[in-house]
Amino acid sequence: MSSIENFLKNAVTPWMGPKGEHSNIVMSTRVRLARNLKGFRFPLDFSREEAEEVDHQVAAALEGMEDFSHIPMESVPAIQRQALVEKHLISPQLADPERPGSVILSGDESVSIMVNEEDHIRIQVIYPGLHLLEAFDRANDIDNRLEEALPYAFDGEFGYITSCPTNTGTGLRASVMLHLPALSITSNMARIAQAVARLGMTVRGSYGEGSDALGNVYQVSNQLTLGKSERDILMDLRDLAERLIEQEERARRALLEHSPMKLEDRVWRSYGILTNARVLATDEAANRLSDVRLGIDMGIIPDVDVSVLNELMIFMQPAFLQRYAGETLQPGERDVFRAKLIRERIGMGRQSGREN
Amino acid sequence: MSSIENFLKNAVTPWMGPKGEHSNIVMSTRVRLARNLKGFRFPLDFSREEAEEVDHQVAAALEGMEDFSHIPMESVPAIQRQALVEKHLISPQLADPERPGSVILSGDESVSIMVNEEDHIRIQVIYPGLHLLEAFDRANDIDNRLEEALPYAFDGEFGYITSCPTNTGTGLRASVMLHLPALSITSNMARIAQAVARLGMTVRGSYGEGSDALGNVYQVSNQLTLGKSERDILMDLRDLAERLIEQEERARRALLEHSPMKLEDRVWRSYGILTNARVLATDEAANRLSDVRLGIDMGIIPDVDVSVLNELMIFMQPAFLQRYAGETLQPGERDVFRAKLIRERIGMGRQSGREN
Repeated sequence: MSSIENFLKNAVTPWMGPKGEHSNIVMSTRVRLARNLKGFRFPLDFSREEAEEVDHQVAAALEGMEDFSHIPMESVPAIQRQALVEKHLISPQLADPERPGSVILSGDESVSIMVNEEDHIRIQVIYPGLHLLEAFDRANDIDNRLEEALPYAFDGEFGYITSCPTNTGTGLRASVMLHLPALSITSNMARIAQAVARLGMTVRGSYGEGSDALGNVYQVSNQLTLGKSERDILMDLRDLAERLIEQEERARRALLEHSPMKLEDRVWRSYGILTNARVLATDEAANRLSDVRLGIDMGIIPDVDVSVLNELMIFMQPAFLQRYAGETLQPGERDVFRAKLIRERIGMGRQSGREN
Repeated sequence: MSSIENFLKNAVTPWMGPKGEHSNIVMSTRVRLARNLKGFRFPLDFSREEAEEVDHQVAAALEGMEDFSHIPMESVPAIQRQALVEKHLISPQLADPERPGSVILSGDESVSIMVNEEDHIRIQVIYPGLHLLEAFDRANDIDNRLEEALPYAFDGEFGYITSCPTNTGTGLRASVMLHLPALSITSNMARIAQAVARLGMTVRGSYGEGSDALGNVYQVSNQLTLGKSERDILMDLRDLAERLIEQEERARRALLEHSPMKLEDRVWRSYGILTNARVLATDEAANRLSDVRLGIDMGIIPDVDVSVLNELMIFMQPAFLQRYAGETLQPGERDVFRAKLIRERIGMGRQSGREN
């Protein structure tokens, strides 16, 4: 097995796959529930003893429920912690070595429960495609199991109590990761972000607040957690996602109609650069991967699998690159390994595409 | 046979081949002798009868000498005339449909004798690689044959009389076409052009006076035709060409030493774009072909033949593109066919390179 095949065997997660509704535009769906236990201070200012007791109680409550692994952060080397962040399985805060925390992961990595992050418990479910209700149902099952065993901090008027008041109420944050290259190319995203904000929702880059929309991947999520039922939050977000998908599809048809050759040229040039460049910075790689993904979706590039692009958006980041290289890399060296990884991975994708 | 194979079968000329000394840097050598007949006015202001008589006498003098074809310009469709210009076999002036002229071509296109261009006779020999003396010898043989049969305009003091005084004397213009990408990348060409001018020679773009150095191809030629023997003119030019080759080689070694990854990245990106782009303007195509040629010369790109690049620099021009397309093309359409031609030709080159 080549080094890249070996690397991928250990790194690919099922939710990166091409399954799921609208999977040409929706990269993934995420649902997160924030919960806290009565009788403990919030993680920001609790003691190490409290942290250990919370961690112990949560792990015990879930014992035997699924093939969960309980992973204390301090047992994880820094580079692996970073890789978990790049895969969206934990937050950068949980990866902070100064703070006690752990993650409980399902075997397929679709469920990750962060313990002692900003709240005592954050149940997160990631699915490929647009599957908000299904993801919520799975998170809800885990929530019910925990609630049976543990005393949640809950207020009859406000709902679930959270460390940050913006999460209080349902404690629900739902988000959909959308690839919107045509709306970006046609400079529509600023207008859309304003319209979305008026609906009480937000559009931002794929790594959350303050992050750029690397490679035209946007995360759309609910802003409000209070005053609306979980179901309403999810339905409103699904409606919004569907409207954005429709607008993206319309923008794609317009590009194809008005300047098909310009579009083909853009897509194929990006393909040519990804499969040949020897140095690729993150931003350029993300934008060119976005072009190629658009080309695949629109039938311009025939024999590359979309899941290759989903994977590469994640694996081209520093921690995964270093796992792939098998050594610590300086920023300049990362650009060289990023180019190598992308070149080899797309090459593999083409071969297997051709065999089908 | 594919359309491109068929096109190339009819368009490739032996002097585009990779043979010849220093053929990695020297694309071709050209020698031209200007001659006029006594008793006729210069082509700029002679009569149609005089033109026909000159043409007839020149053609008759060369009859049976080689496998020459005598081609009156008025018998050649405009697009074919343009193709002869793009191949450097005739000048743009000779292609002017308002003026009477013809060309006498050898079967391998290494000899082209323009009749009734600016002078009555211009004998031109093109060879691949650096072969100034050999090219001159061939031109000289033809010149001797003509001189035996025809009364040349010759002055004991000044030498051969020409329409433009800058050609009077030997009537010799010799030039070498050099690919100097490393000297261009390292911004040395302005300095070199000044130094060359001080030696009584000139450096300019590949299509002669006033033309840009498309794709880093420069034409170095003698400025003086008077006061020096033919042999001295040729030896001085050869010395200069060899010095430029040495400087280019030194600049290449420096690029490889100081920033090998940057160089590899540049070369491979250009390769990726040439083999994938759907729209390519002349300038961009020339610059990227220059990068790829540099990559081949330096062993970075292993399996493409340099002659492919020599050919494409010529065939990517408007008249050849239209012959390839089989129809008249608007400028925007040319960029599309240029991209197609380059993509297909490099693809062919790789295949045959791999079979070896």
